Amino acid sequence: MKKVGVALLGLGTVGGGTYRILEANREMIKKYQGVDLTVEHVLEKNLERCKQLGVDESIVSTDINNVLNNPKIKIVAEFFGGIEPAKTFLIKSLEAGKSIVTANKELVAKYWHELEVAAKKGKAGIYFEASCVGGVPIIRTLIEGMQGNNIQSIKGIVNGTTNYILTKMADTGANYADALREAQELGYAEFNPTADVEGYDASYKLSILSSLAFRTKVPLDKVSREGISTVKVEDIEYGKELGMTLKLLAIGKNTNGKIEARVHPTFVENSSQLALVKGSFNAVSVVGDAVGEIMEYGRGAGDLPTGSAIVSDIVYAALKTRHTLSNFNNTTDQVSNRKFIFDYVTENYLRVDVGLGANPNAVVSLLKKHGVKLSNVSIKPLEDKVSIVMLTESIKDSKLNNAISLLSSISGVIGLQARIRIER
Amino acid sequence: MKKVGVALLGLGTVGGGTYRILEANREMIKKYQGVDLTVEHVLEKNLERCKQLGVDESIVSTDINNVLNNPKIKIVAEFFGGIEPAKTFLIKSLEAGKSIVTANKELVAKYWHELEVAAKKGKAGIYFEASCVGGVPIIRTLIEGMQGNNIQSIKGIVNGTTNYILTKMADTGANYADALREAQELGYAEFNPTADVEGYDASYKLSILSSLAFRTKVPLDKVSREGISTVKVEDIEYGKELGMTLKLLAIGKNTNGKIEARVHPTFVENSSQLALVKGSFNAVSVVGDAVGEIMEYGRGAGDLPTGSAIVSDIVYAALKTRHTLSNFNNTTDQVSNRKFIFDYVTENYLRVDVGLGANPNAVVSLLKKHGVKLSNVSIKPLEDKVSIVMLTESIKDSKLNNAISLLSSISGVIGLQARIRIER
Repeated sequence: MKKVGVALLGLGTVGGGTYRILEANREMIKKYQGVDLTVEHVLEKNLERCKQLGVDESIVSTDINNVLNNPKIKIVAEFFGGIEPAKTFLIKSLEAGKSIVTANKELVAKYWHELEVAAKKGKAGIYFEASCVGGVPIIRTLIEGMQGNNIQSIKGIVNGTTNYILTKMADTGANYADALREAQELGYAEFNPTADVEGYDASYKLSILSSLAFRTKVPLDKVSREGISTVKVEDIEYGKELGMTLKLLAIGKNTNGKIEARVHPTFVENSSQLALVKGSFNAVSVVGDAVGEIMEYGRGAGDLPTGSAIVSDIVYAALKTRHTLSNFNNTTDQVSNRKFIFDYVTENYLRVDVGLGANPNAVVSLLKKHGVKLSNVSIKPLEDKVSIVMLTESIKDSKLNNAISLLSSISGVIGLQARIRIER
Repeated sequence: MKKVGVALLGLGTVGGGTYRILEANREMIKKYQGVDLTVEHVLEKNLERCKQLGVDESIVSTDINNVLNNPKIKIVAEFFGGIEPAKTFLIKSLEAGKSIVTANKELVAKYWHELEVAAKKGKAGIYFEASCVGGVPIIRTLIEGMQGNNIQSIKGIVNGTTNYILTKMADTGANYADALREAQELGYAEFNPTADVEGYDASYKLSILSSLAFRTKVPLDKVSREGISTVKVEDIEYGKELGMTLKLLAIGKNTNGKIEARVHPTFVENSSQLALVKGSFNAVSVVGDAVGEIMEYGRGAGDLPTGSAIVSDIVYAALKTRHTLSNFNNTTDQVSNRKFIFDYVTENYLRVDVGLGANPNAVVSLLKKHGVKLSNVSIKPLEDKVSIVMLTESIKDSKLNNAISLLSSISGVIGLQARIRIER
């Protein structure tokens, strides 16, 4: 039987989950996949953690050379996260002819090109199914399941932390700060939640997924990003009244070769499949010209779900006779702006607050006068102000922004309090 | 560039869709997949259809030898459906070293073993992603995306015709016959709808999917099957009142190596993802020990969705350097009953009708006395009878059947009118 040695760089949550799956399911993988995967080395400082997981101490060290110089090791799985030392270690591994498996979305999004150069040099492969949507094989679907399709759009709830927080706010009426605190207490959010709540994590994933979907590089700096930290619970409530649910969506679209990629809070209709994705679950909807819409749903994070994707990639890599790299032109980080759209066209939810004496109709009239077509207007009289909640028809950002900038000329207007895009 | 010749056996709905995708996306497939797929021969009687699709007449015939003897043809895609002549043609193709691609679930479910024997002889591959859930790459997910998992269950809405009919009944209150007639008029159901409405189609798919999921043969004769033709709209209504939606589910479970496989109308909770799968859409939920639940959703049929899966398989097969066959023991059709469960344990929805003078409590008491624990009882007084709607806790079929058989001893009981399993 084919024997393939594996190194694990880091034995934290996902690294530990991967180790557990590899040990528990080793015989099953031998029997059904025809390959014997053995963990030959582990890079980890925390010996207590190694002992806890039952890792033989003799294969534990903190020196990457023990991985690079071990000819038995064909696959290096990385769990450090962040850029360094992951980047240096993985590039060295690739150059040494070892394929890499990683869940590190930041690294892949930012240094895909450098990784591919090293992979070509070492004739090795790069596998990162686990980097997007945990255990859900969305990358396999894009690469191995939709080859005959021009993919037109990809829309996903790809961050469990923000989905947990938004679900909590919608279900209990909690405000953002309280929902975040609870997510932190339950371990769904980090002590420093910035990467999740400000949409960085989602934008890394969108850069990767839309590059694969549209078969052309969609670099991180072409992805617009807006997080959820300024979301107000009243807008979630007003959205509910209009039959909509608020989600942090990662959206990629390819319209006749013009690509847009954006991460932002988004209202979706309650009857859509994405609206039903609750708590820390993730889901991605892909539309291809032949297949129509496909949606995949599952846990986006966690030791075993992400470990499942890592092990899947390890088996996949171990059985490959020839590693293939991305088929799109990835040789330069200088990607022209010309193939991208930045002035997006969307429907919008708007909330403009005005003082008690002000005339809401003046706001509505001004927007209409400047070409903003409104499909719904509701006036919410409150104790100390009046909120005007409006839905726009599809409109270009530049046109809408222009109209909004004129609102301050109306006496009594407090200002635009919320502007949330709608996707159907 | 690698050139791979393809033959299409039949140019009906899906065959035509496949031809259109191959032609429209040929350059894209060349560019991104690195393989030039050319249609070298088409078996089709209907020359009008060929002309309509723009197929060069010189490559059209009705003689399979034109396929078998053409050395350019490496892949044979079959669209006849049914057993013969598909079976004979595909076995001959495999023996001649040509890989096959098919959406023919009946053929794969019934003759997988024979196809594999021929494939081994010809060193060719068997690809049937399109046979289950149209364009949704569920087979790729099971084989290439969950290698590190013991799969515990698979539950799917795998037949669009029945889902269309049940959705119609639930949304409009139409009875079965009217909903079926409308489905036929709209082309969602065949003139002879038996294969769909009696669950045959779903049972073929379940046999295939649960064999792959559980990595052991689950032959068709071990799959229990119950269709929707006896479903009454009032039970859909009563289920609604209890927060449940009726679906025809294909369910496979592996509980510590004991397998159950069953197709039947099933109540699922309204809050479940499966409840939201409406009309002719399909969805499959898979639970693995590592990844937890994954769900995939999309169109289960149609020329382009199914064509998408066919083309995906053609590309996949064309790029394979070595074809792998099922890794489970498939060498005999004689599979022992010992690894299967037939006396299922489920929760149930029951409706027992009694005459106007009868005492509903006698029914409830008798069931309870014989070990049927009820989680809900509602009495529905109607003009000419009283319906007793009950939900049971989990119970073995044999025990429930025994209790039900005793109901006729109670005076005034009209009888059991509905017994529908519940899945959570």
